[in-house]
Amino acid sequence: MKATLINIGDELLIGQVINTNAAQMSRMMNAGGFDVVGVYTIGDRADAIRDTLDSCLKISDIVLVTGGLGPTKDDITKKVLCDFFHSELYENGEALENVKRRLAAHGRELTPINRLQAWIPRCCTFLNNPLGTAPGMWFEVPGSQPASVVVSLPGVPFEMANLMETEVIPRLRSHFRQQAIFHKNLLVQGIGESFLSDLIEPWERALPENVRLAYLPQPGLTKLRLTARGSESDHLQQQVSELLPSLYSIAGPYIVGEDRESMPELVAEVMRACGKTLSTAESCTGGMLAAKLTALAGASEYFSGGVVSYSNDVKENVLGVRHETLEQWGAVSEQTVREMVCGVRERLDTDYALATTGIAGPGGGTPEKPVGTVWIAVASRSQVFARKLQCPGKRAQVVDRTCNELFGLLVRVVHGKVEK
Amino acid sequence: MKATLINIGDELLIGQVINTNAAQMSRMMNAGGFDVVGVYTIGDRADAIRDTLDSCLKISDIVLVTGGLGPTKDDITKKVLCDFFHSELYENGEALENVKRRLAAHGRELTPINRLQAWIPRCCTFLNNPLGTAPGMWFEVPGSQPASVVVSLPGVPFEMANLMETEVIPRLRSHFRQQAIFHKNLLVQGIGESFLSDLIEPWERALPENVRLAYLPQPGLTKLRLTARGSESDHLQQQVSELLPSLYSIAGPYIVGEDRESMPELVAEVMRACGKTLSTAESCTGGMLAAKLTALAGASEYFSGGVVSYSNDVKENVLGVRHETLEQWGAVSEQTVREMVCGVRERLDTDYALATTGIAGPGGGTPEKPVGTVWIAVASRSQVFARKLQCPGKRAQVVDRTCNELFGLLVRVVHGKVEK
Repeated sequence: MKATLINIGDELLIGQVINTNAAQMSRMMNAGGFDVVGVYTIGDRADAIRDTLDSCLKISDIVLVTGGLGPTKDDITKKVLCDFFHSELYENGEALENVKRRLAAHGRELTPINRLQAWIPRCCTFLNNPLGTAPGMWFEVPGSQPASVVVSLPGVPFEMANLMETEVIPRLRSHFRQQAIFHKNLLVQGIGESFLSDLIEPWERALPENVRLAYLPQPGLTKLRLTARGSESDHLQQQVSELLPSLYSIAGPYIVGEDRESMPELVAEVMRACGKTLSTAESCTGGMLAAKLTALAGASEYFSGGVVSYSNDVKENVLGVRHETLEQWGAVSEQTVREMVCGVRERLDTDYALATTGIAGPGGGTPEKPVGTVWIAVASRSQVFARKLQCPGKRAQVVDRTCNELFGLLVRVVHGKVEK
Repeated sequence: MKATLINIGDELLIGQVINTNAAQMSRMMNAGGFDVVGVYTIGDRADAIRDTLDSCLKISDIVLVTGGLGPTKDDITKKVLCDFFHSELYENGEALENVKRRLAAHGRELTPINRLQAWIPRCCTFLNNPLGTAPGMWFEVPGSQPASVVVSLPGVPFEMANLMETEVIPRLRSHFRQQAIFHKNLLVQGIGESFLSDLIEPWERALPENVRLAYLPQPGLTKLRLTARGSESDHLQQQVSELLPSLYSIAGPYIVGEDRESMPELVAEVMRACGKTLSTAESCTGGMLAAKLTALAGASEYFSGGVVSYSNDVKENVLGVRHETLEQWGAVSEQTVREMVCGVRERLDTDYALATTGIAGPGGGTPEKPVGTVWIAVASRSQVFARKLQCPGKRAQVVDRTCNELFGLLVRVVHGKVEK
């Protein structure tokens, strides 16, 4: 079943705001079994909205529209959709209750402007948005069987995501009588995408017809996603689990985790399971390792803290790296990263510690240590594991790859799956 | 002059990759004086590319296309453009030289597959991409005067950005005989967008016709952008500089900096200018403050390092926050943030220090200290300045706002423009 997205907002067209809604909605639709064939970003203009709706309905069965639902004069999506479906606006009681509830939660009175948000086209089904005042609206296009669907959603990312999850995806799956779908994620490290593809090609070719494999590469990580479709959900899960042993027998050493979307989520699961604590000592990642860990709520259960030792003085004075080590081997060296990781683990008294030191670029490279040279290390209470990386790309990619590789090394160390 | 963007790539439609090219290209086009009226993300399919090109040329004079230029069979943009313009592919000598140069830089031989990247349609102008092997291509559509333009660019963000800056924008400005354009950015803090708008409305209404004002809000920051257009560049700069004193007389206390795109860039400028050093102590920002500072190359000139004191133990043992302070006032308090900022400044021996402690959510809030309560502080060698914030939004927005507000407080402290 084909879908298109229309993201409305002048702020998207001047590049002030990155359109993260498009990626999130695409991921959710894809996971729900729908194929997104186009994403259209346009301004708050009636003709553009109308023309784009027309084109989208020609090439897809589902059109999801975000944005332009605020109460100000710039926000015209609702009016345009109402005209498009030859309907009229009315005050919906359920929508009004939600607007009142939202305002009351912030200690605010209902104003005439807010009240306008409860007016919706008579022909649509109201989808309640418990996180905001703008309504979700479900329209069916007369004609085809099953009817094509247009859904209008607020542009605020967490309001959109909640409505997608609780209302839109379940309703779409039921409306279009979608088959059951089962996904299995595998996080793979230590092998490039093309080598991985060569390695598991025979296994992939032998997959049953109802199971598909997708490669989702990031710096320092490849996510493999298996998607099975069929009539019975229980059977699909069983089917996929029976396919895994043969994959593990070929690519097992590279598979670092299952069922997580990102490495910080995998680290959270592994640290919670073992009940141990973690600290970080960062040079080239400059705080991003800690920031990625703490972006997840509840990180304080296992993450105690860290040191960003950007200068050599901080490496010496706060982490206890020896002056002679820095003099003899330099800041970007196995010796330094080992003393960093032990220093932070001891000083913060954690069970495990992570450390990074490298040349993120664009400057600072030498023939012996070019830009992208990074040393990473994991310490447990009894051992230290250090690895050298050579990261391609720009500063941000070097940091991202370093974080992913180091999280993977930690997981393998905790699971006792790594050679010293 | 109206422009549209077509971003091609299946990875964008499954949500695996966030389309940051769209925002960056829109910003660059906007700064160059062109209005982006639509952004279209589509898959690597010939019919979709052709249809979208057709629609875009109906509503815009300029169409910028990214992606689908790799040498693999999935990448079909070049072939489709060649057919679209009824042209034929040939091996371009300049393009071949560039492919060879790029491969040699990585110690690799020219293969038949790589060589294909030097083949381009005969009807286009070759735009050299010194950072990669995929060519830029400039097509003119016969008919209108001046001719509409289609430009094909690689999808790799830094290759695209370099081609946009060095080739595409200058050529477009010349081809469409664009007026001179002059931009002035002002970074504004401590006042909400709507209050700012009310405050400066009389000044805005009195702006000359050739000068426009745009509001670009972020969490904890509003960027005001003045854009002047006219025939003479020198005159525009003069004109804008004469408009500023009257703006400063109304909104001066809220203007924290000029001519920078972000707060970390402003901090870099201010710290370089004063030649002082900086450190950070982070609780609720969890490393993001340091990560934002170190995302800029050369941060080591002024940033020594920091401590992520996520647990109270780290606040006590590494930063020297007193146990009694944490017991009596709690981790999220003025007393704690003051001891954190002094602790890190002394231990890392820097001229200035920054500290954050707060409740980023979604859990951890109380009636007295709801989610979004954050204390920030700046220490110099002789003084400490602390402020309380109440941040709306989700975890990531709380962190972003805290960082921006704290960077602004630092700049005002360094400039001696803040009351204790």
